Amino acid sequence: MDQQRVVIIGAVALGPKVACRLKRLRPDFQVTMVDQDEYISYGGCGIPYYISGDLSDIKELMSTSFHMLRTPEFFEQAKDVRVMTRTRALTVDRRAKSVRVRHLDSGPEEDLPYDRLVLATGSRPRRLSVPGGDLPQVLGVANLQDALAVRERVSQGQVGKAVIIGAGPLGLEMAEALGDLWGVETTLVEIAAQVLPGVLDPGLARMVAKHLEDHEVTVHLQETVTEIRPGAGAHALQVVTGKRTLDADLVVTALGVRPNSQLAAAANLAVSPQGGIVVNHRLQTSDPDIYAGGDCIENRHLVTGKPVYFPSGSLANRQGRVIGTNLAGGDAQFPGIVGSFTMKIFNLAMAAAGLSLTAALREGLDAVSALVIQADRAHFYPGQDLMYLQLVVDKKTRRLLGAQGLGANGDALVGRVNSIAALLSRGAGLEDLSNLEVAYSPPFASALDIVNAVANTAENILDGYNRTVEVADFEHCFLTEQAGDVICLDVRGAANAAPYVDLFGPRWLNIPQETLKDRFAEIPTDKRLIVVCNSGVRSYEALRQLETAGICNAVNLQGGVAALKKTGLLQAAEKEEED
Amino acid sequence: MDQQRVVIIGAVALGPKVACRLKRLRPDFQVTMVDQDEYISYGGCGIPYYISGDLSDIKELMSTSFHMLRTPEFFEQAKDVRVMTRTRALTVDRRAKSVRVRHLDSGPEEDLPYDRLVLATGSRPRRLSVPGGDLPQVLGVANLQDALAVRERVSQGQVGKAVIIGAGPLGLEMAEALGDLWGVETTLVEIAAQVLPGVLDPGLARMVAKHLEDHEVTVHLQETVTEIRPGAGAHALQVVTGKRTLDADLVVTALGVRPNSQLAAAANLAVSPQGGIVVNHRLQTSDPDIYAGGDCIENRHLVTGKPVYFPSGSLANRQGRVIGTNLAGGDAQFPGIVGSFTMKIFNLAMAAAGLSLTAALREGLDAVSALVIQADRAHFYPGQDLMYLQLVVDKKTRRLLGAQGLGANGDALVGRVNSIAALLSRGAGLEDLSNLEVAYSPPFASALDIVNAVANTAENILDGYNRTVEVADFEHCFLTEQAGDVICLDVRGAANAAPYVDLFGPRWLNIPQETLKDRFAEIPTDKRLIVVCNSGVRSYEALRQLETAGICNAVNLQGGVAALKKTGLLQAAEKEEED
Repeated sequence: MDQQRVVIIGAVALGPKVACRLKRLRPDFQVTMVDQDEYISYGGCGIPYYISGDLSDIKELMSTSFHMLRTPEFFEQAKDVRVMTRTRALTVDRRAKSVRVRHLDSGPEEDLPYDRLVLATGSRPRRLSVPGGDLPQVLGVANLQDALAVRERVSQGQVGKAVIIGAGPLGLEMAEALGDLWGVETTLVEIAAQVLPGVLDPGLARMVAKHLEDHEVTVHLQETVTEIRPGAGAHALQVVTGKRTLDADLVVTALGVRPNSQLAAAANLAVSPQGGIVVNHRLQTSDPDIYAGGDCIENRHLVTGKPVYFPSGSLANRQGRVIGTNLAGGDAQFPGIVGSFTMKIFNLAMAAAGLSLTAALREGLDAVSALVIQADRAHFYPGQDLMYLQLVVDKKTRRLLGAQGLGANGDALVGRVNSIAALLSRGAGLEDLSNLEVAYSPPFASALDIVNAVANTAENILDGYNRTVEVADFEHCFLTEQAGDVICLDVRGAANAAPYVDLFGPRWLNIPQETLKDRFAEIPTDKRLIVVCNSGVRSYEALRQLETAGICNAVNLQGGVAALKKTGLLQAAEKEEED
Repeated sequence: MDQQRVVIIGAVALGPKVACRLKRLRPDFQVTMVDQDEYISYGGCGIPYYISGDLSDIKELMSTSFHMLRTPEFFEQAKDVRVMTRTRALTVDRRAKSVRVRHLDSGPEEDLPYDRLVLATGSRPRRLSVPGGDLPQVLGVANLQDALAVRERVSQGQVGKAVIIGAGPLGLEMAEALGDLWGVETTLVEIAAQVLPGVLDPGLARMVAKHLEDHEVTVHLQETVTEIRPGAGAHALQVVTGKRTLDADLVVTALGVRPNSQLAAAANLAVSPQGGIVVNHRLQTSDPDIYAGGDCIENRHLVTGKPVYFPSGSLANRQGRVIGTNLAGGDAQFPGIVGSFTMKIFNLAMAAAGLSLTAALREGLDAVSALVIQADRAHFYPGQDLMYLQLVVDKKTRRLLGAQGLGANGDALVGRVNSIAALLSRGAGLEDLSNLEVAYSPPFASALDIVNAVANTAENILDGYNRTVEVADFEHCFLTEQAGDVICLDVRGAANAAPYVDLFGPRWLNIPQETLKDRFAEIPTDKRLIVVCNSGVRSYEALRQLETAGICNAVNLQGGVAALKKTGLLQAAEKEEED
């Protein structure tokens, strides 16, 4: 291929990756990146850690791993890539193969001719369209200017109370960033009935919400902000929701993002109804001379086979390499995504890949989930902690659909979810996960690791050996409704069960599993039984025994008492137990 | 299927898993486990952590996660499984379907009839067959009796010096166990030219050896113990090798294990030349009524397709479930293994899956390896540390063959290797790993994670863009031989390069990468160049620039200065740098 002129619109994440990869393969190509911003090639995902104070200098987000600033000069000197900042792309003339740009500071417009064009236009935050949403104390955290503004306010002690609108990943990260080091009294307001809607299923989301509340973040769910107005007293703002009015010195909006595809649409490139630029497996748009990737495109979900919008700085980097290779004359493919996700708040990590149960059911799949709570390393190894892992599978095909989990040790959790993500990307089934050969040594895993255990549990559910209920069912039947015909059968030792027996009286029956086979007569036959143990393992064993004995009106509480505790139910009993 | 009598020979790992799974599915089956030992169902992989003092009580290795001792009584009460300890299986009469056993304490023999039989006979340690190998201070660490004996001696202060024979995984774990808390002066003697032979390739193994030496474990490689004799002075023993005589109060043998297949062979079941019992995908032996799994069988390697012996407590658990399901009338499959491995010594974790480069080449595969050294989370995130990850791929097919790595954060490392293991088990290729969607958040990963980076590096090597040499080549050409025509081109900043320039003079040329394009004239054209940077990334960039400028006699040092440091080369320069 002859030397070519390549223009890249957008110089964060995807753009720089395309430019650098391409120049390494074809140093003779002329590569120009344009960006309307002053700052380029920064790690936007690190913004919460700058605001929290974990990073002392915002330059760390703009540096290479070898501590060089990724400035326009760096790209020109080290990479031989021309960079035009504060330069906005106005239109693409596909026939003339030219991009019209405006130099924002000096004013004039210019045409940049191209042989190949790359759209790396990214995403923009959803705006809060309520009265007062444009007040100066209402800020986003989508770019470095925002980050600097928020950190300046909190570090100067101007923020005693903050309201964060949106309990998605960024909203939660901001809650930690403001609360942890700076001690800002923080309230999250979320329109959905759970935190992390669309990311986690309600059960795990509830555990996350409890973790937030344990760290003094107030969470208001199913609440909509209707107005923001100047404050009357000590605080700059009042945030009005359908249910209350909150004082605030700062409001952070974290409502998610939308793809920047206006330029593509204006150039008559195919854009999806949701606004993502449509690309093929080579990441070419409907014009084969124009590539696109990162937050501005629509991806294909490898589990559903359907289009999906899933912005991610990490995907942008992988896609950037694919585009760079293809621009250089190669034939790299990007087949699609599985939606891998992780984040940390306070002492809790969460991770997910593939479909949640909610998403799977919405897709019309006949899906079921299994939850396992188990030590994140050998249970006898010092420092082990509980990990919570939920698997979603298709009932008929037994195909893996997704996984999500929580744990104090994020590295351990992310590793598990990544190994499942690898299987998801290959269309694997339950038995593949049951046999997945994760590495074993007591400091890092159990002999039967949680990823194998959760597959086995799902299989037991599908095969009818394990009939389960979830924490929400327990809450509904046993706590809220107190249905007279429902009792709990606690198959743990007497010491563990005692506080619950005290609390619930005859509704909480304690028969340790190892004595069960001699004590079936004590079990009322006219009641529905919820069998519980610490985690759901001994109760499964008990369930099998009950069924053998002809007692078939029993179900097993998934995750057992560990799940109840993590969700914040049964706090009264917990307290007694701790005393 | 009618009720059946199932006899299981062996009650550690596989046996109990078979029994429990089977009883949950078919409570009506009569299940009997026999074991010649007194202790059953213990976590043998935890022995080093008992000896080290990490676990205070050996009972922790025999307990469930809910702190019940897995005694014969536990199995009878909680699982309805009959257990006969101190009972040795003598012969299997396949025609009569009966096992003859001897009660070791009381003496009599008995015939146990079976409908189905399970061989869970495990492995036995290789013995040291040299004069003095049977002295009382020479111990193995294969079972709980050994563990108790070793810990008793060290905890009573009887052991000032220890010699460990064999630098495989168990030998290394024992070196930490004896050295770390108890302060025993420990020497490892290994017949091979590296530690962890057959597990890691020489490059990473050398880093492990340095880590051992940094923690005051002496390592003698390529040395064979020829005799052990009573000591003359303060120490109980003298260990004589081909090269020296070592004092010791304790000798631990850790020479690996061999499958216990004598019973199977005597019953004319198929046994491989290496001694493993031959099984099919359902884990049936050549007699369909006899199943086998765990350390006594031969597995199929999913990468080579060939038989392999790979004992592992974790595999035993997975295989136990498959056997339990099949005994109950199911049709579970165990297709094979990829050889996943991990361990921790002192502050270093190592992990591997699939084939090492050594193993791949020995298999006749046209394989190549890539090494990447990169932060284990976002390089700007506090507490990040370096991870070392090597990938092995097939040159022609680009299929993934294996991965191995090191790192201070074991959970993070194991997670990476597990995600590659998942791909290996599915026959995936380089591009699958390049695009593998590992979850991203700055606390847990880089935007372009090390698993993607190592795939990209391998691709660049295969495509001829990155011509690499390894630390051993650097040592040979640049340090040992000091070939006059080889110079290093250090493309880092002047401050980083200075100590090396001081040390090597004109043989170490420093031109920072971002200035390279203006300074080609300074590079001698009559020399071979080894381009180095901190990790191999900037030097790759420089290599591409050099080639563009027509300078084609350059190669890139994989892992850069980070690899040299981790291996212990260039310690003089390191010291200067630290000053």
